[in-house]
Amino acid sequence: MNIYGASVSRLIEEFAKLPGVGAKSASRMAFYVLNSPKERAEALANAILNAKNSSKYCKFCYNLADTDICRICAGSKRDNSTIMVVESPQDMAAYEKTKEYSGLYHILHGAISPMDGVGPADLRIKELLERLQRDESINEVILATNPNIEGEATAMYLAKLLKTLEIKTTRIAHGVPVGSDLEHVDSVTLLRALQGRIPV
Amino acid sequence: MNIYGASVSRLIEEFAKLPGVGAKSASRMAFYVLNSPKERAEALANAILNAKNSSKYCKFCYNLADTDICRICAGSKRDNSTIMVVESPQDMAAYEKTKEYSGLYHILHGAISPMDGVGPADLRIKELLERLQRDESINEVILATNPNIEGEATAMYLAKLLKTLEIKTTRIAHGVPVGSDLEHVDSVTLLRALQGRIPV
Repeated sequence: MNIYGASVSRLIEEFAKLPGVGAKSASRMAFYVLNSPKERAEALANAILNAKNSSKYCKFCYNLADTDICRICAGSKRDNSTIMVVESPQDMAAYEKTKEYSGLYHILHGAISPMDGVGPADLRIKELLERLQRDESINEVILATNPNIEGEATAMYLAKLLKTLEIKTTRIAHGVPVGSDLEHVDSVTLLRALQGRIPV
Repeated sequence: MNIYGASVSRLIEEFAKLPGVGAKSASRMAFYVLNSPKERAEALANAILNAKNSSKYCKFCYNLADTDICRICAGSKRDNSTIMVVESPQDMAAYEKTKEYSGLYHILHGAISPMDGVGPADLRIKELLERLQRDESINEVILATNPNIEGEATAMYLAKLLKTLEIKTTRIAHGVPVGSDLEHVDSVTLLRALQGRIPV
């Protein structure tokens, strides 16, 4: 790739390190930056440095924020009695998009995964327990970790821990996704949908 | 998207401006940057600023380079008698990957496209003509603009111009791509492959 000169090659390499960016996309991005006005390139570079320097974790839920307390925890219209436990800020954003959930969140920043060397101590579990012990208004914890092996393991682990605290703990339902076609749904999901059936 | 705080939202927005990056990829990139060590984020930001500040166009072929003359034009093993005209540095890189073409290049930085308001004056055509008039060693110009409407129009335009200079001008062949299946090749390409048939 050195036919463009060192600085361009380095930019392509740096872009290629981003998740989901291959060599071709990386060079497309680099040429976009090189062909755009200087202010655009500076805006991108500054956004990176600025986000890295000024963003921190909310001291309650570990969402990313520019302030000590994130917008959701600081929101006056939120229901402080419910905490939804999710793996990542993106998962929280997905639930926020539903515009129906008005409780608070707790972000673990990962899931238990022995294969990747991630244990309970690497997640914000201790902080969750402290929060539950400190804040008496919380009366339900919804486990919304991902419906995959790591997410299920994390949910099981948390469910066990929370039992000792005597706080109502629930898990989001497994079932057939809305708009899907039964024919194309895997059998484990079909079975979970059957087991979780509700009276109509 | 403002649930993460302003600095993170701005980073996501900036990433989303890059070509081929949607809202989801942009937030994945942003979280990758935020979760990686500070040096990684700084390396990316610096690569952007550095490439933007120190890269310039080669004064002969208009390839991107850190020096006045790019590596290809400065290369001692290149055949100075042939110039391949391409639309972009990426197209040049594609031909360099073949490792068979040893001539020089001339990068137009675009193609004639009245729909997008790009005329001959917006491309490095004047510079190509000056180069051909200045450099007597050039005896062939290969037109390797893209095989689409804009690329063909540009090739036709250049072919007409070059005729007056009495330099041998060729166009890369159209035909069936190697490894393809005739059944899936469009009829225009099939016809061009037939018209361009060569004795074996």
